Amino acid sequence: MSAQTPWTEPEFVEQLRAKGARYHIHHPFQVLMNEGKLDRKQIQGWVANRFYYQIMIPIKDANVLANCPDREVRRKWIQRIVDHDGTQGDEGGIEAWIRLGEAVGLRREEIVSLEHVLPGVRFAVDAYVNFARRAPWQEAVCSSLTELFAPAIHRARLEGWPRHYPWIKPEGFEYFTSRLTQAPRDVEHGLRVTLDYFRTREQQERALQILQFKLDLLWSMVDAMQIAYLPMKVLQE
Amino acid sequence: MSAQTPWTEPEFVEQLRAKGARYHIHHPFQVLMNEGKLDRKQIQGWVANRFYYQIMIPIKDANVLANCPDREVRRKWIQRIVDHDGTQGDEGGIEAWIRLGEAVGLRREEIVSLEHVLPGVRFAVDAYVNFARRAPWQEAVCSSLTELFAPAIHRARLEGWPRHYPWIKPEGFEYFTSRLTQAPRDVEHGLRVTLDYFRTREQQERALQILQFKLDLLWSMVDAMQIAYLPMKVLQE
Repeated sequence: MSAQTPWTEPEFVEQLRAKGARYHIHHPFQVLMNEGKLDRKQIQGWVANRFYYQIMIPIKDANVLANCPDREVRRKWIQRIVDHDGTQGDEGGIEAWIRLGEAVGLRREEIVSLEHVLPGVRFAVDAYVNFARRAPWQEAVCSSLTELFAPAIHRARLEGWPRHYPWIKPEGFEYFTSRLTQAPRDVEHGLRVTLDYFRTREQQERALQILQFKLDLLWSMVDAMQIAYLPMKVLQE
Repeated sequence: MSAQTPWTEPEFVEQLRAKGARYHIHHPFQVLMNEGKLDRKQIQGWVANRFYYQIMIPIKDANVLANCPDREVRRKWIQRIVDHDGTQGDEGGIEAWIRLGEAVGLRREEIVSLEHVLPGVRFAVDAYVNFARRAPWQEAVCSSLTELFAPAIHRARLEGWPRHYPWIKPEGFEYFTSRLTQAPRDVEHGLRVTLDYFRTREQQERALQILQFKLDLLWSMVDAMQIAYLPMKVLQE
Protein backbone atom coordinates (compact mmCIF):
# COMPACT_ATOMS: atom_id res chain seq x y z
CA MET A 1 0.00 0.00 0.00
CA SER A 2 1.68 3.22 -1.13
CA ALA A 3 1.51 6.36 0.98
CA GLN A 4 -1.15 8.76 -0.23
CA THR A 5 -0.58 12.41 -0.99
CA PRO A 6 -1.62 14.64 1.91
CA TRP A 7 -4.67 16.80 1.40
CA THR A 8 -3.94 20.49 0.89
CA GLU A 9 -5.10 22.73 3.74
CA PRO A 10 -8.34 23.71 1.99
CA GLU A 11 -9.03 20.05 1.11
CA PHE A 12 -8.33 18.94 4.69
CA VAL A 13 -10.61 21.68 6.08
CA GLU A 14 -13.28 20.57 3.64
CA GLN A 15 -12.94 16.96 4.89
CA LEU A 16 -13.27 18.15 8.48
CA ARG A 17 -16.31 20.30 7.63
CA ALA A 18 -17.95 17.40 5.77
CA LYS A 19 -18.16 15.60 9.14
CA GLY A 20 -20.93 18.08 9.97
CA ALA A 21 -23.30 15.60 8.33
CA ARG A 22 -22.94 13.47 11.48
CA TYR A 23 -23.41 16.35 13.96
CA HIS A 24 -26.04 15.74 16.67
CA ILE A 25 -28.20 18.51 15.18
CA HIS A 26 -29.46 15.65 12.95
CA HIS A 27 -30.32 13.30 15.85
CA PRO A 28 -34.07 12.48 15.96
CA PHE A 29 -34.34 13.90 19.49
CA GLN A 30 -32.69 17.20 18.50
CA VAL A 31 -34.78 17.38 15.33
CA LEU A 32 -37.94 17.11 17.43
CA MET A 33 -36.49 19.70 19.82
CA ASN A 34 -35.71 22.20 17.09
CA GLU A 35 -39.10 21.65 15.45
CA GLY A 36 -40.79 22.66 18.71
CA LYS A 37 -42.18 19.19 19.36
CA LEU A 38 -40.75 18.46 22.79
CA ASP A 39 -42.73 19.06 25.94
CA ARG A 40 -41.55 20.90 29.03
CA LYS A 41 -40.26 17.79 30.81
CA GLN A 42 -38.25 16.71 27.77
CA ILE A 43 -36.69 20.16 27.33
CA GLN A 44 -35.84 20.17 31.03
CA GLY A 45 -34.28 16.72 30.69
CA TRP A 46 -32.08 17.86 27.83
CA VAL A 47 -30.96 21.02 29.66
CA ALA A 48 -30.24 19.15 32.91
CA ASN A 49 -28.25 16.44 31.12
CA ARG A 50 -26.35 18.77 28.87
CA PHE A 51 -25.27 20.61 32.04
CA TYR A 52 -22.95 17.69 32.78
CA TYR A 53 -21.19 18.39 29.49
CA GLN A 54 -20.92 22.08 30.37
CA ILE A 55 -19.29 21.47 33.74
CA MET A 56 -16.82 18.95 32.36
CA ILE A 57 -15.57 21.23 29.55
CA PRO A 58 -13.20 23.21 31.81
CA ILE A 59 -11.88 19.91 33.22
CA LYS A 60 -11.31 18.71 29.66
CA ASP A 61 -9.54 21.96 28.80
CA ALA A 62 -7.43 21.82 31.95
CA ASN A 63 -6.24 18.41 30.78
CA VAL A 64 -5.19 19.98 27.47
CA LEU A 65 -3.20 22.59 29.41
CA ALA A 66 -1.76 19.89 31.66
CA ASN A 67 -0.39 17.99 28.65
CA CYS A 68 0.79 20.99 26.64
CA PRO A 69 4.41 22.17 26.93
CA ASP A 70 3.83 25.07 24.49
CA ARG A 71 3.27 28.29 26.42
CA GLU A 72 1.87 30.16 23.43
CA VAL A 73 -0.84 27.54 23.02
CA ARG A 74 -1.59 27.56 26.76
CA ARG A 75 -1.91 31.37 26.71
CA LYS A 76 -4.74 31.05 24.22
CA TRP A 77 -6.29 27.82 25.41
CA ILE A 78 -6.72 29.05 29.00
CA GLN A 79 -9.35 31.48 27.73
CA ARG A 80 -11.71 28.55 27.23
CA ILE A 81 -11.55 27.71 30.92
CA VAL A 82 -12.20 31.34 31.86
CA ASP A 83 -15.10 31.53 29.39
CA HIS A 84 -16.79 28.59 31.09
CA ASP A 85 -15.85 29.21 34.71
CA GLY A 86 -15.94 33.03 34.70
CA THR A 87 -13.76 34.82 37.21
CA GLN A 88 -16.39 35.63 39.83
CA GLY A 89 -20.08 35.51 40.72
CA ASP A 90 -22.48 34.80 37.90
CA GLU A 91 -19.95 35.10 35.10
CA GLY A 92 -19.16 32.34 32.64
CA GLY A 93 -20.83 29.69 30.53
CA ILE A 94 -21.64 27.34 33.41
CA GLU A 95 -23.66 30.04 35.19
CA ALA A 96 -25.30 30.99 31.87
CA TRP A 97 -26.35 27.36 31.47
CA ILE A 98 -27.81 27.33 34.99
CA ARG A 99 -29.84 30.41 33.98
CA LEU A 100 -31.05 28.45 30.96
CA GLY A 101 -32.04 25.68 33.35
CA GLU A 102 -33.98 28.11 35.53
CA ALA A 103 -35.55 29.65 32.41
CA VAL A 104 -36.98 26.23 31.48
CA GLY A 105 -38.35 25.75 35.00
CA LEU A 106 -35.66 23.77 36.79
CA ARG A 107 -34.44 24.74 40.24
CA ARG A 108 -30.73 25.61 40.58
CA GLU A 109 -30.26 22.80 43.11
CA GLU A 110 -31.66 20.12 40.86
CA ILE A 111 -29.34 21.28 38.08
CA VAL A 112 -26.12 21.42 40.09
CA SER A 113 -26.89 18.21 42.01
CA LEU A 114 -26.73 16.37 38.65
CA GLU A 115 -29.68 14.30 39.85
CA HIS A 116 -31.19 14.15 36.36
CA VAL A 117 -27.95 13.19 34.62
CA LEU A 118 -28.37 9.82 32.89
CA PRO A 119 -25.60 7.18 33.08
CA GLY A 120 -25.20 7.08 29.29
CA VAL A 121 -24.68 10.85 29.21
CA ARG A 122 -22.09 10.61 31.95
CA PHE A 123 -20.16 7.83 30.19
CA ALA A 124 -20.07 9.77 26.90
CA VAL A 125 -18.92 13.04 28.50
CA ASP A 126 -16.36 11.24 30.66
CA ALA A 127 -14.99 9.61 27.49
CA TYR A 128 -14.23 13.12 26.23
CA VAL A 129 -12.42 14.14 29.43
CA ASN A 130 -10.47 10.88 29.51
CA PHE A 131 -9.45 11.32 25.91
CA ALA A 132 -8.07 14.78 26.73
CA ARG A 133 -6.32 13.32 29.76
CA ARG A 134 -4.53 10.56 27.88
CA ALA A 135 -4.12 11.64 24.24
CA PRO A 136 -1.43 14.00 22.91
CA TRP A 137 -2.69 17.54 23.49
CA GLN A 138 -2.93 18.22 19.75
CA GLU A 139 -5.36 15.32 19.43
CA ALA A 140 -7.44 16.73 22.27
CA VAL A 141 -7.44 20.08 20.46
CA CYS A 142 -8.58 18.36 17.28
CA SER A 143 -11.47 16.74 19.16
CA SER A 144 -12.80 20.22 19.98
CA LEU A 145 -13.45 20.92 16.30
CA THR A 146 -17.14 20.07 16.53
CA GLU A 147 -17.16 23.81 17.27
CA LEU A 148 -17.08 24.12 13.48
CA PHE A 149 -20.71 23.06 13.54
CA ALA A 150 -21.85 24.71 16.77
CA PRO A 151 -22.84 28.19 15.52
CA ALA A 152 -25.48 26.63 13.23
CA ILE A 153 -27.06 24.75 16.14
CA HIS A 154 -27.00 27.82 18.42
CA ARG A 155 -28.49 30.02 15.70
CA ALA A 156 -31.26 27.49 15.05
CA ARG A 157 -32.14 27.53 18.74
CA LEU A 158 -32.09 31.33 18.97
CA GLU A 159 -34.28 31.50 15.89
CA GLY A 160 -36.77 28.74 16.68
CA TRP A 161 -37.08 28.36 20.43
CA PRO A 162 -38.72 31.72 21.29
CA ARG A 163 -41.42 30.86 18.74
CA HIS A 164 -41.81 27.16 19.63
CA TYR A 165 -41.35 27.45 23.36
CA PRO A 166 -42.74 30.86 24.39
CA TRP A 167 -42.83 29.63 28.00
CA ILE A 168 -38.99 29.67 28.19
CA LYS A 169 -37.82 32.92 29.81
CA PRO A 170 -35.70 34.93 27.31
CA GLU A 171 -32.71 35.29 29.68
CA GLY A 172 -32.21 31.58 29.16
CA PHE A 173 -30.90 32.18 25.64
CA GLU A 174 -27.86 34.15 26.75
CA TYR A 175 -25.62 31.06 26.65
CA PHE A 176 -26.37 30.47 22.97
CA THR A 177 -25.80 34.16 22.14
CA SER A 178 -22.41 34.25 23.87
CA ARG A 179 -21.25 31.07 22.13
CA LEU A 180 -22.00 32.64 18.75
CA THR A 181 -19.01 34.93 19.25
CA GLN A 182 -16.80 32.57 21.33
CA ALA A 183 -17.05 29.43 19.15
CA PRO A 184 -15.72 30.95 15.89
CA ARG A 185 -12.73 32.49 17.73
CA ASP A 186 -12.02 29.16 19.47
CA VAL A 187 -12.37 27.12 16.31
CA GLU A 188 -9.88 29.32 14.46
CA HIS A 189 -7.22 28.45 17.03
CA GLY A 190 -8.15 24.77 17.20
CA LEU A 191 -8.14 24.51 13.44
CA ARG A 192 -4.69 26.14 13.21
CA VAL A 193 -3.22 23.63 15.69
CA THR A 194 -4.87 20.75 13.83
CA LEU A 195 -3.66 21.86 10.39
CA ASP A 196 -0.11 22.25 11.72
CA TYR A 197 0.03 18.92 13.56
CA PHE A 198 -1.75 16.50 11.23
CA ARG A 199 0.42 16.73 8.07
CA THR A 200 0.64 13.36 6.34
CA ARG A 201 -2.43 11.81 4.78
CA GLU A 202 -2.40 9.12 7.46
CA GLN A 203 -2.33 11.78 10.18
CA GLN A 204 -5.09 13.75 8.47
CA GLU A 205 -7.24 10.63 8.42
CA ARG A 206 -6.48 10.12 12.09
CA ALA A 207 -7.78 13.67 12.67
CA LEU A 208 -11.04 12.73 10.96
CA GLN A 209 -11.33 9.68 13.21
CA ILE A 210 -10.81 11.86 16.28
CA LEU A 211 -13.51 14.26 15.10
CA GLN A 212 -15.79 11.26 14.50
CA PHE A 213 -15.14 10.06 18.06
CA LYS A 214 -16.30 13.46 19.31
CA LEU A 215 -19.36 13.41 17.05
CA ASP A 216 -20.14 9.91 18.34
CA LEU A 217 -20.06 11.01 21.95
CA LEU A 218 -22.33 13.98 21.36
CA TRP A 219 -24.73 11.65 19.50
CA SER A 220 -24.52 9.02 22.24
CA MET A 221 -25.52 11.63 24.84
CA VAL A 222 -28.74 12.31 22.92
CA ASP A 223 -29.34 8.57 22.40
CA ALA A 224 -29.46 8.20 26.18
CA MET A 225 -31.93 11.08 26.42
CA GLN A 226 -34.08 9.59 23.66
CA ILE A 227 -34.34 6.27 25.51
CA ALA A 228 -35.13 8.03 28.80
CA TYR A 229 -37.50 10.76 27.62
CA LEU A 230 -39.17 9.78 24.34
CA PRO A 231 -42.07 7.33 24.31
CA MET A 232 -40.92 4.54 22.01
CA LYS A 233 -42.31 1.20 21.00
CA VAL A 234 -40.15 -1.81 20.17
CA LEU A 235 -41.52 -3.29 16.94
CA GLN A 236 -40.38 -6.84 17.62
CA GLU A 237 -42.09 -9.55 19.62
CA MET B 1 -27.89 14.29 60.85
CA SER B 2 -26.62 11.57 63.16
CA ALA B 3 -24.39 8.80 61.87
CA GLN B 4 -26.32 5.62 61.16
CA THR B 5 -25.46 2.20 62.52
CA PRO B 6 -23.51 0.13 60.00
CA TRP B 7 -25.28 -2.85 58.53
CA THR B 8 -24.11 -6.23 59.82
CA GLU B 9 -22.27 -8.36 57.27
CA PRO B 10 -25.35 -10.41 56.35
CA GLU B 11 -27.43 -7.21 56.06
CA PHE B 12 -24.80 -5.56 53.88
CA VAL B 13 -24.57 -8.63 51.64
CA GLU B 14 -28.34 -8.61 51.37
CA GLN B 15 -28.26 -4.94 50.29
CA LEU B 16 -25.66 -5.75 47.66
CA ARG B 17 -27.64 -8.75 46.42
CA ALA B 18 -30.82 -6.67 46.22
CA LYS B 19 -29.14 -4.63 43.49
CA GLY B 20 -29.67 -7.67 41.28
CA ALA B 21 -33.09 -6.18 40.49
CA ARG B 22 -31.27 -3.68 38.25
CA TYR B 23 -29.05 -6.25 36.51
CA HIS B 24 -29.06 -6.10 32.71
CA ILE B 25 -30.74 -9.52 32.59
CA HIS B 26 -33.93 -7.41 32.95
CA HIS B 27 -33.13 -5.07 30.03
CA PRO B 28 -35.77 -5.34 27.23
CA PHE B 29 -33.08 -6.35 24.71
CA GLN B 30 -31.76 -9.13 26.95
CA VAL B 31 -35.30 -10.27 27.76
CA LEU B 32 -36.01 -10.66 24.04
CA MET B 33 -32.66 -12.43 23.66
CA ASN B 34 -33.33 -14.92 26.42
CA GLU B 35 -36.87 -15.55 25.16
CA GLY B 36 -35.43 -16.60 21.81
CA LYS B 37 -36.88 -13.60 19.97
CA LEU B 38 -33.75 -12.10 18.44
CA ASP B 39 -32.69 -12.87 14.92
CA ARG B 40 -29.25 -13.93 13.76
CA LYS B 41 -28.03 -10.39 13.04
CA GLN B 42 -29.13 -9.15 16.47
CA ILE B 43 -27.44 -12.05 18.27
CA GLN B 44 -24.30 -11.38 16.25
CA GLY B 45 -24.47 -7.69 17.16
CA TRP B 46 -24.68 -8.50 20.84
CA VAL B 47 -21.79 -10.99 20.72
CA ALA B 48 -19.57 -8.61 18.68
CA ASN B 49 -20.27 -5.68 21.01
CA ARG B 50 -19.92 -7.63 24.21
CA PHE B 51 -16.49 -8.71 22.94
CA TYR B 52 -15.26 -5.18 23.68
CA TYR B 53 -16.20 -5.74 27.32
CA GLN B 54 -14.37 -9.09 27.31
CA ILE B 55 -11.11 -7.65 25.99
CA MET B 56 -11.15 -4.71 28.40
CA ILE B 57 -11.65 -6.86 31.52
CA PRO B 58 -7.94 -7.82 31.81
CA ILE B 59 -7.02 -4.14 31.34
CA LYS B 60 -9.45 -3.26 34.10
CA ASP B 61 -7.98 -5.96 36.35
CA ALA B 62 -4.42 -4.86 35.56
CA ASN B 63 -5.41 -1.41 36.80
CA VAL B 64 -6.58 -2.99 40.06
CA LEU B 65 -3.18 -4.71 40.38
CA ALA B 66 -1.42 -1.46 39.48
CA ASN B 67 -3.15 0.39 42.34
CA CYS B 68 -2.92 -2.36 44.95
CA PRO B 69 0.00 -2.47 47.39
CA ASP B 70 -1.27 -5.66 49.06
CA ARG B 71 0.62 -8.65 47.67
CA GLU B 72 -1.86 -11.16 49.05
CA VAL B 73 -4.67 -9.49 47.14
CA ARG B 74 -2.57 -9.29 43.96
CA ARG B 75 -1.74 -13.01 44.24
CA LYS B 76 -5.44 -13.79 44.01
CA TRP B 77 -6.55 -11.01 41.69
CA ILE B 78 -3.98 -11.90 39.00
CA GLN B 79 -5.92 -15.11 38.35
CA ARG B 80 -8.66 -13.02 36.71
CA ILE B 81 -6.22 -11.77 34.11
CA VAL B 82 -4.96 -15.28 33.42
CA ASP B 83 -8.53 -16.56 33.18
CA HIS B 84 -9.29 -14.04 30.44
CA ASP B 85 -5.98 -13.96 28.61
CA GLY B 86 -4.98 -17.60 29.02
CA THR B 87 -1.29 -18.42 28.97
CA GLN B 88 -0.98 -19.61 25.37
CA GLY B 89 -2.82 -20.41 22.15
CA ASP B 90 -6.57 -20.76 22.40
CA GLU B 91 -6.77 -20.66 26.19
CA GLY B 92 -8.74 -18.11 28.15
CA GLY B 93 -12.07 -16.29 28.17
CA ILE B 94 -11.25 -13.95 25.28
CA GLU B 95 -10.59 -16.87 22.94
CA ALA B 96 -13.70 -18.63 24.26
CA TRP B 97 -15.70 -15.50 23.39
CA ILE B 98 -14.23 -15.49 19.87
CA ARG B 99 -15.39 -19.10 19.53
CA LEU B 100 -18.86 -17.94 20.61
CA GLY B 101 -18.63 -15.29 17.89
CA GLU B 102 -17.71 -17.90 15.29
CA ALA B 103 -20.47 -20.18 16.58
CA VAL B 104 -23.04 -17.43 15.84
CA GLY B 105 -21.63 -16.93 12.34
CA LEU B 106 -19.15 -14.08 12.72
CA ARG B 107 -15.67 -14.26 11.24
CA ARG B 108 -12.75 -14.01 13.69
CA GLU B 109 -11.46 -10.90 11.88
CA GLU B 110 -14.71 -8.99 12.19
CA ILE B 111 -14.79 -9.80 15.92
CA VAL B 112 -11.23 -8.79 16.76
CA SER B 113 -11.28 -5.71 14.47
CA LEU B 114 -14.05 -4.31 16.73
CA GLU B 115 -15.75 -3.01 13.57
CA HIS B 116 -19.22 -3.72 14.99
CA VAL B 117 -18.56 -2.09 18.38
CA LEU B 118 -20.98 0.80 18.91
CA PRO B 119 -19.76 4.11 20.39
CA GLY B 120 -22.16 3.88 23.33
CA VAL B 121 -20.81 0.43 24.20
CA ARG B 122 -17.26 1.70 24.03
CA PHE B 123 -17.99 4.69 26.29
CA ALA B 124 -19.67 2.48 28.90
CA VAL B 125 -16.89 -0.12 28.96
CA ASP B 126 -14.19 2.56 29.00
CA ALA B 127 -15.95 4.13 32.00
CA TYR B 128 -15.34 0.85 33.83
CA VAL B 129 -11.64 0.77 32.95
CA ASN B 130 -11.19 4.43 33.86
CA PHE B 131 -12.91 3.87 37.18
CA ALA B 132 -10.45 1.06 37.97
CA ARG B 133 -7.59 3.30 36.86
CA ARG B 134 -8.50 6.20 39.12
CA ALA B 135 -10.45 4.89 42.10
CA PRO B 136 -8.94 3.23 45.20
CA TRP B 137 -8.38 -0.44 44.34
CA GLN B 138 -10.95 -1.58 46.91
CA GLU B 139 -13.61 0.46 45.09
CA ALA B 140 -12.60 -1.14 41.80
CA VAL B 141 -12.92 -4.54 43.47
CA CYS B 142 -16.36 -3.59 44.73
CA SER B 143 -17.42 -2.65 41.20
CA SER B 144 -16.75 -6.24 40.11
CA LEU B 145 -19.54 -7.51 42.35
CA THR B 146 -22.06 -7.74 39.51
CA GLU B 147 -20.50 -11.21 39.43
CA LEU B 148 -23.00 -11.92 42.19
CA PHE B 149 -25.65 -11.92 39.49
CA ALA B 150 -23.71 -13.44 36.60
CA PRO B 151 -24.25 -17.17 37.22
CA ALA B 152 -28.03 -16.70 36.81
CA ILE B 153 -27.58 -15.02 33.41
CA HIS B 154 -25.08 -17.65 32.22
CA ARG B 155 -27.33 -20.49 33.37
CA ALA B 156 -30.33 -18.93 31.61
CA ARG B 157 -28.33 -18.79 28.37
CA LEU B 158 -27.07 -22.37 28.71
CA GLU B 159 -30.61 -23.53 29.39
CA GLY B 160 -32.48 -21.50 26.76
CA TRP B 161 -30.19 -20.78 23.84
CA PRO B 162 -29.71 -24.35 22.50
CA ARG B 163 -33.51 -24.58 22.33
CA HIS B 164 -34.20 -21.07 20.98
CA TYR B 165 -31.21 -20.77 18.68
CA PRO B 166 -30.46 -24.29 17.39
CA TRP B 167 -28.35 -22.70 14.63
CA ILE B 168 -25.67 -21.67 17.18
CA LYS B 169 -22.88 -24.23 17.23
CA PRO B 170 -22.64 -25.85 20.71
CA GLU B 171 -18.91 -25.07 21.16
CA GLY B 172 -20.00 -21.43 21.45
CA PHE B 173 -21.41 -22.07 24.91
CA GLU B 174 -18.08 -22.96 26.47
CA TYR B 175 -17.54 -19.40 27.75
CA PHE B 176 -20.76 -19.48 29.76
CA THR B 177 -19.93 -22.92 31.18
CA SER B 178 -16.46 -21.85 32.32
CA ARG B 179 -17.79 -18.69 33.98
CA LEU B 180 -20.20 -20.81 36.04
CA THR B 181 -17.25 -22.09 38.04
CA GLN B 182 -15.00 -18.99 37.83
CA ALA B 183 -17.54 -16.31 38.83
CA PRO B 184 -18.52 -17.79 42.24
CA ARG B 185 -14.84 -18.17 43.20
CA ASP B 186 -14.10 -14.59 42.06
CA VAL B 187 -17.11 -13.12 43.82
CA GLU B 188 -16.12 -14.73 47.11
CA HIS B 189 -12.82 -12.85 47.05
CA GLY B 190 -14.34 -9.57 45.84
CA LEU B 191 -17.02 -9.77 48.49
CA ARG B 192 -14.46 -10.38 51.25
CA VAL B 193 -12.46 -7.29 50.21
CA THR B 194 -15.66 -5.22 50.04
CA LEU B 195 -16.93 -6.33 53.45
CA ASP B 196 -13.56 -5.56 55.04
CA TYR B 197 -13.10 -2.12 53.42
CA PHE B 198 -16.59 -0.58 53.55
CA ARG B 199 -17.28 -0.59 57.31
CA THR B 200 -19.30 2.49 58.29
CA ARG B 201 -22.83 2.93 57.07
CA GLU B 202 -21.70 5.81 54.87
CA GLN B 203 -19.02 3.61 53.30
CA GLN B 204 -21.49 0.77 52.85
CA GLU B 205 -23.82 3.11 51.02
CA ARG B 206 -20.91 4.22 48.88
CA ALA B 207 -20.35 0.55 47.99
CA LEU B 208 -23.97 0.33 46.83
CA GLN B 209 -23.45 3.42 44.65
CA ILE B 210 -20.36 1.84 43.10
CA LEU B 211 -22.28 -1.34 42.37
CA GLN B 212 -25.05 0.79 40.84
CA PHE B 213 -22.49 2.54 38.62
CA LYS B 214 -21.42 -0.86 37.34
CA LEU B 215 -25.03 -1.94 36.81
CA ASP B 216 -25.64 1.32 34.93
CA LEU B 217 -22.76 0.73 32.56
CA LEU B 218 -23.85 -2.83 31.77
CA TRP B 219 -27.38 -1.49 31.14
CA SER B 220 -26.08 1.39 29.02
CA MET B 221 -24.20 -1.08 26.79
CA VAL B 222 -27.45 -2.85 26.01
CA ASP B 223 -29.27 0.48 25.51
CA ALA B 224 -26.82 1.25 22.70
CA MET B 225 -27.48 -2.17 21.15
CA GLN B 226 -31.23 -1.68 21.45
CA ILE B 227 -31.05 1.62 19.54
CA ALA B 228 -28.79 0.11 16.88
CA TYR B 229 -30.40 -3.29 16.40
CA LEU B 230 -34.07 -3.21 17.43
CA PRO B 231 -36.69 -1.70 15.14
CA MET B 232 -38.31 1.03 17.23
CA LYS B 233 -40.88 3.70 16.56
CA VAL B 234 -40.89 7.08 18.31
CA LEU B 235 -44.46 7.71 19.45
CA GLN B 236 -44.22 11.49 19.38
CA GLU B 237 -44.75 13.82 16.45
